Amino acid sequence: MSLTPEQLAEIEEQRAITAPTRRAVSPGMEERLYTAHPVLDHGLVRVIDYMGDDAAICQAARVSYGRGTKAVSDDRGLIRYLMRHWHSTPFEMCEVKFHVKLPVFVARQWIRHRTANVNEYSARYSILDREFYIPAPDALAAQSTVNNQGRGEVLEGAEAQRVLDLLREDAMRSYDHYEDMLTPDAEAGKLGLARELARMNLPANIYTQWYWKIDLHNLFHFLRLRADHHAQYEIRVYAETMCDITRDWVPAAYEAFEDYRLGGQNLSGKAVEVLKRRLAGEEVTQESSGMSKGEWREFMGVWG
Amino acid sequence: MSLTPEQLAEIEEQRAITAPTRRAVSPGMEERLYTAHPVLDHGLVRVIDYMGDDAAICQAARVSYGRGTKAVSDDRGLIRYLMRHWHSTPFEMCEVKFHVKLPVFVARQWIRHRTANVNEYSARYSILDREFYIPAPDALAAQSTVNNQGRGEVLEGAEAQRVLDLLREDAMRSYDHYEDMLTPDAEAGKLGLARELARMNLPANIYTQWYWKIDLHNLFHFLRLRADHHAQYEIRVYAETMCDITRDWVPAAYEAFEDYRLGGQNLSGKAVEVLKRRLAGEEVTQESSGMSKGEWREFMGVWG
Amino acid sequence: MSLTPEQLAEIEEQRAITAPTRRAVSPGMEERLYTAHPVLDHGLVRVIDYMGDDAAICQAARVSYGRGTKAVSDDRGLIRYLMRHWHSTPFEMCEVKFHVKLPVFVARQWIRHRTANVNEYSARYSILDREFYIPAPDALAAQSTVNNQGRGEVLEGAEAQRVLDLLREDAMRSYDHYEDMLTPDAEAGKLGLARELARMNLPANIYTQWYWKIDLHNLFHFLRLRADHHAQYEIRVYAETMCDITRDWVPAAYEAFEDYRLGGQNLSGKAVEVLKRRLAGEEVTQESSGMSKGEWREFMGVWG
Amino acid sequence: MSLTPEQLAEIEEQRAITAPTRRAVSPGMEERLYTAHPVLDHGLVRVIDYMGDDAAICQAARVSYGRGTKAVSDDRGLIRYLMRHWHSTPFEMCEVKFHVKLPVFVARQWIRHRTANVNEYSARYSILDREFYIPAPDALAAQSTVNNQGRGEVLEGAEAQRVLDLLREDAMRSYDHYEDMLTPDAEAGKLGLARELARMNLPANIYTQWYWKIDLHNLFHFLRLRADHHAQYEIRVYAETMCDITRDWVPAAYEAFEDYRLGGQNLSGKAVEVLKRRLAGEEVTQESSGMSKGEWREFMGVWG
Repeated sequence: MSLTPEQLAEIEEQRAITAPTRRAVSPGMEERLYTAHPVLDHGLVRVIDYMGDDAAICQAARVSYGRGTKAVSDDRGLIRYLMRHWHSTPFEMCEVKFHVKLPVFVARQWIRHRTANVNEYSARYSILDREFYIPAPDALAAQSTVNNQGRGEVLEGAEAQRVLDLLREDAMRSYDHYEDMLTPDAEAGKLGLARELARMNLPANIYTQWYWKIDLHNLFHFLRLRADHHAQYEIRVYAETMCDITRDWVPAAYEAFEDYRLGGQNLSGKAVEVLKRRLAGEEVTQESSGMSKGEWREFMGVWG
Repeated sequence: MSLTPEQLAEIEEQRAITAPTRRAVSPGMEERLYTAHPVLDHGLVRVIDYMGDDAAICQAARVSYGRGTKAVSDDRGLIRYLMRHWHSTPFEMCEVKFHVKLPVFVARQWIRHRTANVNEYSARYSILDREFYIPAPDALAAQSTVNNQGRGEVLEGAEAQRVLDLLREDAMRSYDHYEDMLTPDAEAGKLGLARELARMNLPANIYTQWYWKIDLHNLFHFLRLRADHHAQYEIRVYAETMCDITRDWVPAAYEAFEDYRLGGQNLSGKAVEVLKRRLAGEEVTQESSGMSKGEWREFMGVWG
Repeated sequence: MSLTPEQLAEIEEQRAITAPTRRAVSPGMEERLYTAHPVLDHGLVRVIDYMGDDAAICQAARVSYGRGTKAVSDDRGLIRYLMRHWHSTPFEMCEVKFHVKLPVFVARQWIRHRTANVNEYSARYSILDREFYIPAPDALAAQSTVNNQGRGEVLEGAEAQRVLDLLREDAMRSYDHYEDMLTPDAEAGKLGLARELARMNLPANIYTQWYWKIDLHNLFHFLRLRADHHAQYEIRVYAETMCDITRDWVPAAYEAFEDYRLGGQNLSGKAVEVLKRRLAGEEVTQESSGMSKGEWREFMGVWG
Repeated sequence: MSLTPEQLAEIEEQRAITAPTRRAVSPGMEERLYTAHPVLDHGLVRVIDYMGDDAAICQAARVSYGRGTKAVSDDRGLIRYLMRHWHSTPFEMCEVKFHVKLPVFVARQWIRHRTANVNEYSARYSILDREFYIPAPDALAAQSTVNNQGRGEVLEGAEAQRVLDLLREDAMRSYDHYEDMLTPDAEAGKLGLARELARMNLPANIYTQWYWKIDLHNLFHFLRLRADHHAQYEIRVYAETMCDITRDWVPAAYEAFEDYRLGGQNLSGKAVEVLKRRLAGEEVTQESSGMSKGEWREFMGVWG
């Protein structure tokens, strides 16, 4: 992360100001507000605003007039019930707004989640900064030999060095040329290329940034997919940071999410049958399971 | 509006509690929070929570690190620019949550706006209250003779009286039978009909309630359609109350909305041509306008 | 179902017309097109249009130029893979449009699914027909004593008779008064109440109808929730009819849906642990499971 | 556009096959189906599937049982009425699916329209082709001096040549290094970098492709924003091609869209007042208009 002193001062200034509110307040989230949580080499996640807390979920589920006199333990039980039975609308009653700085190729995956509000820094309107994602050595992985969209071993030695050199040199050269094309020079009779065109020379590891706002139900959906071990490492680290933040914001809801979604399993009808047969003492093989080889491999990965 | 003393006490209790927050605070909205604004005979609108203010719209548009040192007048100019050019995403960065009590036939129109989050009081799970919308005398209108989905003259005398009597009597009788069907009676060998079935006997003027959460851009879209004079009176009064609340929440955004949307006009290409010809001194008739009779009548309704 | 001879003739006329198309054609769906499938006493489901078939799902997943030479068995495997790994976007590439006639209280549950396009028959603009849902004797159930939003035993004898009488009489009386209020009578000095007001007297078992269009991914989500045994019977019968239609439309996708969603199970992290302990020979009780009583009861309902 | 002979053959093969259908058929769209319409230097737009036609819009608005005996002129009038009064749901009843090949920086603007379904070619899973957008000489524009997100004069001579050289050379070098990093070489002890990582070296003018499906209402919204003269040229040419296709698909709806949206104007309340004063013979200046300088300049740009 590479914030300027001015940016750090702006953040501190915002954190220093408090005002009274009648709204629901989440102490864990107040502690997080505005602070830049570093991700990757130059990325960050900041909470800019939030609405609601654990009690607000229950209040909405009950369509109640007040915050109610319900005990915290009752709220926790209700939240678990709602999560278990896919009653998603009460979780939609909480909302959060993040400021995220991330490489463009990560942004392109992220934006596929359509149920969020986004304001991205515009490279038509402004000039991007010279900041590129260069993987740390332990993130420099070979193509997986078993998974068409995954990673295998970590690269080493000369190959690793060459990859890092190419990434760095191409990024710097592209940015030099971006600046060159943009810059007018009256003496040389240079007008300067339009920003909306010059940007096309920049590679996908350049950093962009946006404000991203989403409700808690859809945030959980995003986190389930992107904090999963199938997700690409470079988006997963963002999701993991947001998991930590969400745990501080709505502890009871996050606990239910962790139990029923992150740590849970979806079983097919075939898988249910196999488990029941095994519980009854039967030995089941791929052949007798009715599953394909791929399904069986994935099933055995969990149930051994 | 007919709140119980318990409900009023719960509201007062919530209003009495404040806590410090680092988030953006809208003074106008803090003043509104939780208070029940009466609508129709038993309906209400309450603000339960909100996120953001005028400055937050600009902050998102600029993807900035701090609240910035921009003057309020700069923010106002930017907000007007964004509204004029249909840059809707910064307005999506504000969010509001309402508690609304409304007749079912109004709820059925309202729910057609899909870009909101809703938790409705469940008549499968709970028993509805004996509260029905009965129009005030000046809202008891005849079918319009020119508009297939509009109202004409106000009913008077015996006809008005008969309509009110029928609405009241049918509502009371339906509710009596709803209660009768629901109530078990061991001595009489009565089990009591399931709530999810008994509710089918209730007419569309019974009141329901929900929590409804929406971002500011989509709220403006809702208000433009529902505060319009084409909207049915019974939903328009809700929209008007929400207009007042929104003006207190985000004064600059509301002012821009009022100028560019509520008070504005959409002109077709044909209408632009007619106005240009008239500005050039030409007399234009329906025949020479290229418009159909219906379009011409609507056009003349505005441009005389 | 109670279609007029004119409506039946219109349906037959549409079915009789075919034209050549270059688009993907689903033979099973062509057979279904326009036919009214009866549901409840006066309801119906008709397919009005569809886009895509099983092959179109694969074509989109591969972003391919042609229909490809892939074998049907390859397509089936790919579809199962996509379903298993929650790759939902290829399923969104199929679309279907239904005409549905349904009681208003069912419509109010149905409309909560926001990811669909809807055109409902307007009671502001038109007069509704005298058609009400009256449950068949075996659907006339008591409130469940264990589930706050479920049904228990079937009502019998005098209680059942009384419920049916009340529902029928209230429906007829409400409709009589609806007509009475609507009807102008110049001699009697009656203007006739506006349709948008008169409709408020009608109970929630009156039938409405709409065109409803949705993509296959979101249709599956709807069917999973509404064909489930927790869903209210009166919406479940619609979902079941649509399941049958969908099976004819996209047989491979439906088979995958049935295995991974309808017939599958979601396990929490706690439930996974319990099953692993049981597979390892351990006896697990509610106390040692870490589950609440409610969770344990639901868990044991499946795993015995 | 640079299709391979195999791709052209696949397209021809698909176009050659027709089958009978009972669905609504649009002759103009059948003519377009599958054909690759070239856009920019290597881009394309192809219609893959469609649902509905002009009559289907009316059928949905009427919630009717048959196609009806309404005259085409009645349908045209109804469609204009619906468009004029922002009754958008009947237009949502038509759907279209495109295959689009486009530069990544265009794709990033395009994807901001969230109300569509998308399947993009995956650079995690597959290797991208060596195809980059290089602007034609007349599209090589300088930054606008008056509009922060627009273009000004066309570059000429040495500056133009240098820009084109830089874009071409950087694209080729980046792609060479992409291939280099990807390729395993057992002898050299090279594993080959994972595809999901190697792609980060590719600039934003590389071509990607996707299947994109949207309903007619939301397509019109997209076209209004992207066929507008404020839109960046490189996305506008796609929108214009899609306008031509849509005109062939639903001629009456497109005509209404062209009149009320593309060719229309939105007036603010202030602008309405100014026009009324001018129609009444008054001379109005910026000072007496109540508009800011920016608003006045835009207003005068239309009304002179």
